[in-house]
Amino acid sequence: MNMVEIIQKKKEGKPLNREEIRWFITGYVAGEIPDYQVSALLMAICFQGLTKEETVELTEAMRYSGDTIDLSSIEGIKVDKHSTGGVGDKTTLVVAPLAAACGLPIAKMSGRGLGFTGGTVDKMESIPGFRIAMEPEEFLNQVNEVGMAVIGQTAHITPADKKLYALRDVTATVDHFGLIASSIMSKKLAAGSDAIVLDVKCGDGAFMEKMEDAVTLAEIMTEIGNAAGRRTVAVITEMGQPLGRAVGNSLEVVEAIDTLKGKGPVDITQLSEKLAGMMIYLGGKAKSPEEGCRMAEEALKDGRGLKKFREFVKAQGGNPSVIDDASLFPAATVKNQLLAEQDGYINRLEAKGIGLASQHTGAGRATKEEEIDLAAGIYLHKKVGDPVKVGEVLADFFGNDEARVEAAMKEAKEAFVIGCEPVAPPELIKQIIGL
Amino acid sequence: MNMVEIIQKKKEGKPLNREEIRWFITGYVAGEIPDYQVSALLMAICFQGLTKEETVELTEAMRYSGDTIDLSSIEGIKVDKHSTGGVGDKTTLVVAPLAAACGLPIAKMSGRGLGFTGGTVDKMESIPGFRIAMEPEEFLNQVNEVGMAVIGQTAHITPADKKLYALRDVTATVDHFGLIASSIMSKKLAAGSDAIVLDVKCGDGAFMEKMEDAVTLAEIMTEIGNAAGRRTVAVITEMGQPLGRAVGNSLEVVEAIDTLKGKGPVDITQLSEKLAGMMIYLGGKAKSPEEGCRMAEEALKDGRGLKKFREFVKAQGGNPSVIDDASLFPAATVKNQLLAEQDGYINRLEAKGIGLASQHTGAGRATKEEEIDLAAGIYLHKKVGDPVKVGEVLADFFGNDEARVEAAMKEAKEAFVIGCEPVAPPELIKQIIGL
Repeated sequence: MNMVEIIQKKKEGKPLNREEIRWFITGYVAGEIPDYQVSALLMAICFQGLTKEETVELTEAMRYSGDTIDLSSIEGIKVDKHSTGGVGDKTTLVVAPLAAACGLPIAKMSGRGLGFTGGTVDKMESIPGFRIAMEPEEFLNQVNEVGMAVIGQTAHITPADKKLYALRDVTATVDHFGLIASSIMSKKLAAGSDAIVLDVKCGDGAFMEKMEDAVTLAEIMTEIGNAAGRRTVAVITEMGQPLGRAVGNSLEVVEAIDTLKGKGPVDITQLSEKLAGMMIYLGGKAKSPEEGCRMAEEALKDGRGLKKFREFVKAQGGNPSVIDDASLFPAATVKNQLLAEQDGYINRLEAKGIGLASQHTGAGRATKEEEIDLAAGIYLHKKVGDPVKVGEVLADFFGNDEARVEAAMKEAKEAFVIGCEPVAPPELIKQIIGL
Repeated sequence: MNMVEIIQKKKEGKPLNREEIRWFITGYVAGEIPDYQVSALLMAICFQGLTKEETVELTEAMRYSGDTIDLSSIEGIKVDKHSTGGVGDKTTLVVAPLAAACGLPIAKMSGRGLGFTGGTVDKMESIPGFRIAMEPEEFLNQVNEVGMAVIGQTAHITPADKKLYALRDVTATVDHFGLIASSIMSKKLAAGSDAIVLDVKCGDGAFMEKMEDAVTLAEIMTEIGNAAGRRTVAVITEMGQPLGRAVGNSLEVVEAIDTLKGKGPVDITQLSEKLAGMMIYLGGKAKSPEEGCRMAEEALKDGRGLKKFREFVKAQGGNPSVIDDASLFPAATVKNQLLAEQDGYINRLEAKGIGLASQHTGAGRATKEEEIDLAAGIYLHKKVGDPVKVGEVLADFFGNDEARVEAAMKEAKEAFVIGCEPVAPPELIKQIIGL
C-alpha cells in the first residue's frame, strides 16, 4: 500500500477500505508514515467526509493501536459514562457513586482537563492524598471490593488517537464529526466496558454549539458503539450556561459532595440522577431508564451515594474527612467578588466566557504541560432566570494570583447578560439518542 | 500571524491576503512552519482553490524566496521560453538558436528531466565537453557576445517552490492549477526575462491531458505573467504522440541539429519556427508573430540558426564537431528494433507509453538522484497517420543494458495502436492564449 494513493483516493471522495485504514493507522503509530501525509489525509477527510463504515473502521484501528483494558474479571455488566466536555461538569463525581450504590460496578478511566473544559482526574486530585495512578490489578480489585474505582488514562491506551489528535489540533482539522466521534469512541472502546452512556454537551460552552451538530455527533458515536457490540446511548444536555454553581477543581468536588448530601443545585442533581439511571438501566439493574433514575434518586436521598463516595475516596488514598469539612481542600489566597451593575434578570450566562474566566483564575490549563491551581475557580451566585439587583454578588472568584483573578473577573463580566424581562432557565436534557 | 488560522481560513473558502501568503512562504522556507501544516493548507487549496490575486501573490512570494537573476546588463528585450514538458520535446535546441540568429538575446535557465519528461540540461550534456554550470557574469557575457547561453538551475532560485513541490509530490496535492501555475511562473519570473512564451503541452504524454485543462493552466499562467509586468503568451501544443522521431538525450540533440540543417521532422521544424516567431515578436524584432515566424524560417533555411548553435556549443566548451559527425555522441552498446506485427495505419502512438519506454532504456530518471544514460532512447520510424506493413520497423531502441532495452520494447509495443483505416496526424498548435 502507498500513502499517496490513499490520500488521492480520499481526495477524490472514494471510501477507504478496512485494510487501507488499518495500514495507515499502524504505519502512523510506528512512525513510518510522516505527519505531513497524515495531515493532508485529515484535510481531505474534512472535505470528503467518512462513511459510517470508514468511521467504524477508523475507530477500531485506533482502539487496537495500543493497550486495551480487560474488565472481564469484574462481575456484571460494566457501564461507562463519557461527557464531551463542558463548564462546571462534575456529574461523574455524583453519577458514579449513585450508580455504584445501586449495584453497578464502576471501573472508570478518566482524563485531565484542557482549555476551559475540566477533567475528572484533576478534580479528584484536589482531595488531599487521592491517587489516580494504579496498577491494573489494583484497579480491578477495588471495583470488585468497593464497587467503584477511577484511574487516569495510561500512556499506552490508543496512541493513534493521541498522535492524530495532536496533529489535528495544529492543522485546523479538529472539527470533523467522524474524526471527533472516532477519537472519543476509540478510547471508550479500549477502556473495556460493556455499555456506554454518552453525555453530549450542547451550547456555547461545549464543542458542539448547535443542536443539529450535537445530534449528528451523538448519532455517529452511538452507531460506532453499537457496531462494536457495545450498547451505546447518547444524552444531549444543555451547556449554554455552566452546570451547577461551582467551576474549578476543588470547588466542584465540594459541590459534588453537597449534591450527594442532597444539598446540591437542582441542575446537577437532576442530570446526575438521569445519567445514573441510564447507566443502571443499561447495566441491567433496572427495567427502564426511569426506574434506574428512581433508584439513583433513592440512593441519593438515603445517603448510600455519599457512603459509596466516602469508601471510594478512602480506597484510593484520599482523606475522607474532606467530605465533612470543606476547609481541608486546598485554599485560595485571593478572593474577589463580581457585583451586579444593573437591576434585571440574568438572560444569559455564557458558559464559554465563564470557562475562560475560570481558566484565567488558574483552574484550567492552556497547554497539556501547564500546572493548574486546584483551589482556583468561580462560584456563581446568579444563574439564568435569576432576578438581580445592583450591588448583589454575581459570582465569587478564587485564586492565588491577584492579576489572574482580575483578568478572570473582566472576562466573566461579559458572560453575564442582564435584561429587563425574566427568562425561563433552559431545558436540561434536550434529546436522547440510541435508546 | 498564526498558521492554524491561515489553514482554517482557506478551509472555509476565504481568500488569503498578501501578508498571510508572504508570511507562510517565508516561514516555510526558513523552516519555522512545519511540513504537516503546509500540507494541510495545500490540501485545503486543492478543495477551495485560489483566486487570481492569491495565485499572483503566491507566485511573487515564491519568486522572491531566494535569488533572482538580473538580466539588465544584457541589451534588448529578453524573452524566455518554457515548455510544460512532453516526450521528445527538443524545441529549445532549435528555437533558441533561431531566435538568437534573428537578433533576440537568449539567456536561458533550464532544468533536468524527471520521469518520462526530458530536460534541456541533460540533452546539452550529451555533447562532449559541454558545460552547463557557469558563473552569472560569464553567463551574461556570453549572451552579449554570442547572443545565446543556457545555464542549469542554481540551487538558490525559488527555494520555496522546490520545498513546496517536493511536499506536493508526496501528499497528493500536485494537480491543482493555481499551484502548478505559480510553481512554473515563480521560476520563470525569478529567471529575469522581460517576456515569456509558454509552450503548454496537451495530450496523453503531457501533464495536462485534456484541452480544457491546458486552457485553464495557460490562462492562469499568462495572467500571472502579465500581472507581474511580463508580457506572457501561451501556445497550447499537441502532445498526444511524441514530438519528432527521437526520444532520449543524444538522439534528440542529433535530431535538433538535423532540424537546424533543414532535414528535421516536419512537426519539430514547424513548431520551432512558430515558437521562435512568437519570441521574436515579443522581443520587438518583428511586427507580428507571423513575421517573426517567417524570420525564423529564413534563419533556418540560410543556415544562420545552425551557425548560432555552433557558436553557442563552442562558447560553452562543447565539441562543435558533433554537429558534422553524430558518431562523436555517446554510443549505445545495445540496439534493437521493434517490428510491426500487422498491416494497417498508425492510429495512435501514445506519448506517455513511449516516454515510459524511453525511461526504461535508461534515458530518463525516476528520482532526482538517478543517473541517466545519455546514449539511450528510442527512434520512431512510424508516427500517427503512417501506413505500416508486417515486418516493417516501428522503432529503434538504444541503450547499454539488454534487460532494460527489452523492458522498453515491451512497454513501447503497447503504445503503437495500429488500425485498418488511415488517420490524419493531429494539429500541432491547438490554441494561442494571451496574445
